[in-house]
Amino acid sequence: MEIPVIRSVFESNEKRAHKVREQLTKRGILTLNMISSPGAGKTTVLEHTLADLAKEFSIAVIEGDLQTDNDARRIAKSGVQVVQINTEGGCHLESSMIQNCFDNLTLDNLDILIIENVGNLVCPVEFDLGEDAKIALLSVTEGDDKPEKYPLLFQLAKVLLITKTDLLPYVDFSMDKAIHYATRNNPDLCTIPVSSTQNTGFDPWYAWIRKAVADKKHHTASPNLS
Amino acid sequence: MEIPVIRSVFESNEKRAHKVREQLTKRGILTLNMISSPGAGKTTVLEHTLADLAKEFSIAVIEGDLQTDNDARRIAKSGVQVVQINTEGGCHLESSMIQNCFDNLTLDNLDILIIENVGNLVCPVEFDLGEDAKIALLSVTEGDDKPEKYPLLFQLAKVLLITKTDLLPYVDFSMDKAIHYATRNNPDLCTIPVSSTQNTGFDPWYAWIRKAVADKKHHTASPNLS
Repeated sequence: MEIPVIRSVFESNEKRAHKVREQLTKRGILTLNMISSPGAGKTTVLEHTLADLAKEFSIAVIEGDLQTDNDARRIAKSGVQVVQINTEGGCHLESSMIQNCFDNLTLDNLDILIIENVGNLVCPVEFDLGEDAKIALLSVTEGDDKPEKYPLLFQLAKVLLITKTDLLPYVDFSMDKAIHYATRNNPDLCTIPVSSTQNTGFDPWYAWIRKAVADKKHHTASPNLS
Repeated sequence: MEIPVIRSVFESNEKRAHKVREQLTKRGILTLNMISSPGAGKTTVLEHTLADLAKEFSIAVIEGDLQTDNDARRIAKSGVQVVQINTEGGCHLESSMIQNCFDNLTLDNLDILIIENVGNLVCPVEFDLGEDAKIALLSVTEGDDKPEKYPLLFQLAKVLLITKTDLLPYVDFSMDKAIHYATRNNPDLCTIPVSSTQNTGFDPWYAWIRKAVADKKHHTASPNLS
């Protein structure tokens, strides 16, 4: 009798993510996977980013939510392409869901694809979506201990946006402590404090995006150099 | 050839939860399962609750975390029994983990067992731990749209503690909207705004606990009436 082998959900996701990454890379599209707790400010940061960069770059957004299309409707106001994924209660996005979005997205001449994952500091981290970079968000109201308590995201992310800095006077949050724990196993992590309410701190974020877009196009144009 | 049946993780969890509930109910122990996003204030609310009720009731705490025992050490300062569960990256607690804690907990004469789940608004909701009530927490900094976007917890909880109300002047949060979405599929949900920083709003929470402890003991003493 043969023993049935259940292919792991991770293995299946990795294979599909590889295909998604190939498709996006051959077109030179920088792809970002935004991950945070619910309410850390992903959609609001995205609204600011689109308002400031949508004339400079061609950007599309994939919105992940358990249900509702509230965030997709907010993003659509900026005029960029947006596709909603509803996970029907599922706690993370998977690469097959991204692949399925390509039927409804025009990838030609796109510079940047931004994926807003389901609000969850744990599960989405383990699922590669074919992105170039995971972008972590941590709001100062969540507490400076979170990078120590939920370490994997902060180990794997390339950027950490520390949000809601306008609330720093009213909460017990040490920027030094948060950055210490976020970077101790990821010294290259780029940490950027921002306030969407006060519209401050976004310039380093935009500079990071501009460089990442240029790097992506450079590698795509000269694949033998990479 | 027989087709192998993989028993679902949910089915296995339900059976164990039933046993946990039996053990706790025969001793008349009120059991609460606290669930929220990371940083909504579970541990701080718990510290306040223990400071105010630990002389009135015999309370034990089970702390769930991916790693670290930071929260368990905070809770231990209150003098109550505390057991740490580290999920090693896992996104929720399961009933078997609670069962395993009973080797390290004295259940005799215990009035209340409080389980602080892993910080996650999605996954822990689907795993019955044998509790009498799920206690949801939502901080005003997370946004009033979260009960609409992550509905299951708010449908299943018996109490919703709306935390960090001291920050209401600085954030865009409508208490009415949050309560509307939280209660529209759960009209019996008891919603209690609190501020741990200002130590306000806790009296209705303590009143709810006192009644729940009395109800639990009453049902245990007279099981034929239940």
